[in-house]
Amino acid sequence: MVELSDDAMERFPVPDLEDLPDDLRERIEGETERAGFTPNVFAAFAYEPSHFRAFFAFHDALVEDSALEREEIEMIVVAVSGINHCYYCNVAHGALVRIYAEDPTLADQLIANYRTADVSDARRTMLDVAVKLTERPTEVGREDLEALREAGFSEKAIWEIGAVTAYYNMSNRMATFAEMRPNDEFHALGRE
Amino acid sequence: MVELSDDAMERFPVPDLEDLPDDLRERIEGETERAGFTPNVFAAFAYEPSHFRAFFAFHDALVEDSALEREEIEMIVVAVSGINHCYYCNVAHGALVRIYAEDPTLADQLIANYRTADVSDARRTMLDVAVKLTERPTEVGREDLEALREAGFSEKAIWEIGAVTAYYNMSNRMATFAEMRPNDEFHALGRE
Amino acid sequence: MVELSDDAMERFPVPDLEDLPDDLRERIEGETERAGFTPNVFAAFAYEPSHFRAFFAFHDALVEDSALEREEIEMIVVAVSGINHCYYCNVAHGALVRIYAEDPTLADQLIANYRTADVSDARRTMLDVAVKLTERPTEVGREDLEALREAGFSEKAIWEIGAVTAYYNMSNRMATFAEMRPNDEFHALGRE
Amino acid sequence: MVELSDDAMERFPVPDLEDLPDDLRERIEGETERAGFTPNVFAAFAYEPSHFRAFFAFHDALVEDSALEREEIEMIVVAVSGINHCYYCNVAHGALVRIYAEDPTLADQLIANYRTADVSDARRTMLDVAVKLTERPTEVGREDLEALREAGFSEKAIWEIGAVTAYYNMSNRMATFAEMRPNDEFHALGRE
Amino acid sequence: MVELSDDAMERFPVPDLEDLPDDLRERIEGETERAGFTPNVFAAFAYEPSHFRAFFAFHDALVEDSALEREEIEMIVVAVSGINHCYYCNVAHGALVRIYAEDPTLADQLIANYRTADVSDARRTMLDVAVKLTERPTEVGREDLEALREAGFSEKAIWEIGAVTAYYNMSNRMATFAEMRPNDEFHALGRE
Amino acid sequence: MVELSDDAMERFPVPDLEDLPDDLRERIEGETERAGFTPNVFAAFAYEPSHFRAFFAFHDALVEDSALEREEIEMIVVAVSGINHCYYCNVAHGALVRIYAEDPTLADQLIANYRTADVSDARRTMLDVAVKLTERPTEVGREDLEALREAGFSEKAIWEIGAVTAYYNMSNRMATFAEMRPNDEFHALGRE
Repeated sequence: MVELSDDAMERFPVPDLEDLPDDLRERIEGETERAGFTPNVFAAFAYEPSHFRAFFAFHDALVEDSALEREEIEMIVVAVSGINHCYYCNVAHGALVRIYAEDPTLADQLIANYRTADVSDARRTMLDVAVKLTERPTEVGREDLEALREAGFSEKAIWEIGAVTAYYNMSNRMATFAEMRPNDEFHALGRE
Repeated sequence: MVELSDDAMERFPVPDLEDLPDDLRERIEGETERAGFTPNVFAAFAYEPSHFRAFFAFHDALVEDSALEREEIEMIVVAVSGINHCYYCNVAHGALVRIYAEDPTLADQLIANYRTADVSDARRTMLDVAVKLTERPTEVGREDLEALREAGFSEKAIWEIGAVTAYYNMSNRMATFAEMRPNDEFHALGRE
Repeated sequence: MVELSDDAMERFPVPDLEDLPDDLRERIEGETERAGFTPNVFAAFAYEPSHFRAFFAFHDALVEDSALEREEIEMIVVAVSGINHCYYCNVAHGALVRIYAEDPTLADQLIANYRTADVSDARRTMLDVAVKLTERPTEVGREDLEALREAGFSEKAIWEIGAVTAYYNMSNRMATFAEMRPNDEFHALGRE
Repeated sequence: MVELSDDAMERFPVPDLEDLPDDLRERIEGETERAGFTPNVFAAFAYEPSHFRAFFAFHDALVEDSALEREEIEMIVVAVSGINHCYYCNVAHGALVRIYAEDPTLADQLIANYRTADVSDARRTMLDVAVKLTERPTEVGREDLEALREAGFSEKAIWEIGAVTAYYNMSNRMATFAEMRPNDEFHALGRE
Repeated sequence: MVELSDDAMERFPVPDLEDLPDDLRERIEGETERAGFTPNVFAAFAYEPSHFRAFFAFHDALVEDSALEREEIEMIVVAVSGINHCYYCNVAHGALVRIYAEDPTLADQLIANYRTADVSDARRTMLDVAVKLTERPTEVGREDLEALREAGFSEKAIWEIGAVTAYYNMSNRMATFAEMRPNDEFHALGRE
Repeated sequence: MVELSDDAMERFPVPDLEDLPDDLRERIEGETERAGFTPNVFAAFAYEPSHFRAFFAFHDALVEDSALEREEIEMIVVAVSGINHCYYCNVAHGALVRIYAEDPTLADQLIANYRTADVSDARRTMLDVAVKLTERPTEVGREDLEALREAGFSEKAIWEIGAVTAYYNMSNRMATFAEMRPNDEFHALGRE
C-alpha cells in the first residue's frame, strides 16, 4: 500500500494519497513501483497538484530524448545542488549519480567540489558552465558555449546543459523552501 | 502574419513558425494576438518544443488560480530578476508590473532595490523572502514563513511565493544562458 | 516657478528654494530651465550647501573638456549604478544614456548586464574595468589599464574612466543613503 | 624646495610642480608647509588639475564646519579604507587617526576590524553604518539612520556620516586605480 | 601488511611506510589497526614528518579530555567542511558523525545545510557560531559567545568550539591544497 | 619579572604564569627574553595548555628547517591575515615582516593589497596562491601549483606555502574568536 510520508517536508502539510487527483495518484504509484519506495519529492509537490504536474512534466522533458547521457544530467544536478547546498537534491540525485554512473564515490566528489571529481575533460567543461550559470549567471558568455562546442557537445546538448542547470536552480530552491527531506533509502543506494 | 524574430535570442537559432508543432504555433498566435506582438521568450523556447511546453505549462500553473494577486507575482518576478541581473525578465516583466500594478515607476524601483520601493509592509515581507530565497536559499528558515503568515499570506500563498521565486531563478538563468532579448515594445509599455 | 519637491529624498528634509544661497538658487534655476523640471538630486544636495557646491563642481569637472564622449561617461554611470543597485542613478542617468547615445534600449541593457549590451569592443573593455573597479577594486591591475590602452583610449581617457567610476561609487552611495527619488519625468525620457 | 615625487603613483605620470596652475601650486606649498612633506595624493591628483580642484574642494567641505569631530571623520575613513583594502588611505589616514585621536593603536584596530576597536558605543554605531554603506549600500535602511539618531548624532551629523563614507568610496577607488603610494613619513607618524 | 596508498593525495608524492621515522610508522600502524584500513590523511601528511607530528598532536589535543562530546566535535567538523567544500573531510568525518552520533543521515544533513539538520537547539547555536567563524570571522562578537553560554556551554567548551572550527579551517585548506582523497571505506561506514 | 597581561585577550581569562605547567612557563620565559616582552598570543593560548603546546609545536614545525625563507613565511602570514582582517596577526606579524624583510613599509602594503606590494614576481605568485587558498580554496587547482613550480619553488616549498596559509587561517580565526590583542610594542617595531 502506497502512503505519502508526513516527513516528506517540514514546512507544509503532506496530503493523503486518496485525496489526490487520479493522474497524480497514478504517477505516484508508478514511481513507487519503480523505486521500491515513494520518493518524497512526489509527496511534497502533491501539496499543489497543478505545480506537481508542471514540475514533473518539465523534469520528464529534460530527461526524455535528451542529447545528454542520463549520467551527465545527474552529474549536473548534483554539482549544482552541492553549490546551492540543497539537502534533498544532494541525497536523492546523489543516489542517481551512483546508479547511472555505476560509481559509488562520484556523487560525494561532486557535492563537495566538482573540480577534483574523476570526470573526463569534456564533462569538467560541462560542469564548469553549469556551476558558473548557478553562481554568477551574468558572467556566462558566448566563450563558455564555445568551450562546450569544442568539448564535443552538440548545440542541442548545450541548450540542455543550460536547461538542466536552470531547472535545478528552481528545484533546489523549492526543496529548500519547503524543507523537503530525502527518503532514508536514498542515502545508501548505489554505495557498493 | 506572425513571424519569430531572429533577434529573439543571440546564442541559439530561432526556428521558423511554420516548422513548429501545431500546439506551439497556436500558443504563439494566441499570445501574439493578445500582446499585439510576439514576446521573444516564445520564439526562443520554440528551439526545443518539449521545453517550450513544459516551461509555459509551469508558468500557466503559477498564474492561474493563484492565491497571490497577479501584480504580486509580477513584483516578485521583477525583484528576483533585478537581483539576478536578467535583461529579458527585467524588461518584459517590468512592463507587466507597470500594467498590472497600474504604476509607471514601480518596476524601475523593484529592479534597482526592492527595499525602497513603494509597496505595502506585507508585500515588503513577501519580497524579503523572495530575495533571500534567491540569494541565500539555505538561510530561509521557518521564521521567514512565519513572517509571511503574520503579514497575512495564506499557506497556499506562501507556497506560491516560494514557487514563483524558484521558477524565475530558472527563467532568469535560461534567458541569460541563451541571451534572450526583450522586444522593443516592452521597454515603453505602461510608462504613462 | 521653480520649486524643490519634498519627494526628492525620503530621509532628510528638502529645503525651500528661497532659503538657499544665491549660487545654489542660480544653479538650480539654470538646470530647471535646461531640463524642463528640477532634477531631484539638486533638491537633495541643497540640504548641505557646501556639499552641493563640491558635488556638482566635481561632476562638472568630469564632463567638461573630457577625453571621453559624453555617451561613454553616461554608459559608465549606468553600468556602475546597475551593479550598486542605485535607483536614482539608474533612472536619471538611464535617461541620459538614451538621449546621448540616441538609443532607447541601451540603458536597460546596461542596468541589467553590461556584458550583453550592444556596445563596441572598446566600450566593452571600458565597462569591464569600470565594473571591476566598482566590485573588486584591489584586483584592478596594470594589465587592465593596458587593455584600455590597446582598446584605443588615451592616458587622459583612462584616468577619466577611473575617475567617473570612482565618483559614481560615491554618488550611488549618497543617493541610496538619503533615499533620493528620480523625478517621474526621467523614467520615460528618450524612450522612442 | 617643494618637489612632487615620481613615486606618488605608479600608473600615471606625476607632473612637475612648476608646470601646474598657480592655485594648485599654492595649495601644494601650503600642505607641504603644514605637514613637513608633500602628501602624495596632491602630487597624484595634479595629473588632472580640474579633478585636483574638485577633489580637494569636496574634502575641505567635508572637514570644515562639520557636525562630526575630526577624529570621527578620520575613523570613518580608515574603517572604510580597511574594507576597501586601500593602501594609500589606510596609511595616510591611519596617521591622521593616530594624531587626531591621540591614540597610537586605534588606526591599526580600525583597518583590521572596527568591531573590536576601542571606541564608544555611539562611534561603533557610526562605523556600523559606514561599513554597511560601503559593503552593501542597498541594505542601509531608515532603521540604520534611526540607530544613529538614538546614538546621539544630529541630523546634519548623520548626513555627514553618509557623505564621508561615500566620498572615501570614491577616494579609495581612485587611489587604487592610479596605484597611489603613501609617503614613507605616514607609516610612522603618531606612533608614540 | 600496512601500505600507504599512492591515491591518498593527487598533488604530492606519498612516501613509503618503511622510509618513515619510527614514531610516524607506529602511529600509522596503530590507526590502521583501529580503523581496519589506513586513513589517507596519515599517508598524505607523512610527506612532511614534522607537519605530521604537529597536525596529529593538535588533533589529539582537541579530542582528548574535551568539554565537548565527541559527536559534537565531529558535527562541527562536518558543518565547517561542508561550507569549505572539502571532499576529504566531508567523507571521512561524515563517517565519524554517523558512528559517534549513531545516526545514518545526520552527516549528509550537516554537509548540505546545518540549519535544517536534526540537532538540538544548543547544538544549532554551536553550529551557528562555527559556521560564522568559518565564513565571516570578523563578525563573530561577544554576543555569539554569550549565546553559547546561554545554550549551556561552559567557558572551556566555548573555547573548544572556536578551536575545533579554526583547526578544520586549516585542515580543509590543507586537504584541498594537496587534493587528499578519502578512502573508499569511509563513504559507506555507518550508513545502516 | 614576566607577567601575563590581562589585556592579552578580551573574551577568555588569562591565567597567571605561576599556575602554568613548567613547559609552558619555560617557553613563555624564553620568548619574553628573546622579544623583550611577552607576546600576547602566548598569554592567550595558555588558557588551554594542551592547545598551547600543539599550536606552538605546529608553528615551530613550520618555521624550522623550512624551504621558504623566513621573510617569505611572514609575508604569507600578513597577506592572509589582511584578507581575514585579523587584528592580532596583522600587527604582530607585520612587525616580523618589517624585521625579517628589513623593510619598514612592506607589511602595510601586504595588509592592504598584496597585489601592489613591492615583491618579486615569484613572491607575487606565492601570495596569489596563498590568498586564493584563503578566499576560495576549492578553486586552487593543479595549475596553481604548476605556477609555483615555474616561479622556482621546490615541491617541499610548495607544500609549505599551502601549510603556512592553512595554519594562519586557523590562527586568524582563533585570535579573532578570543579577541586577542597585540602588545603595544608590535605596532612600532621595525618601522625605521
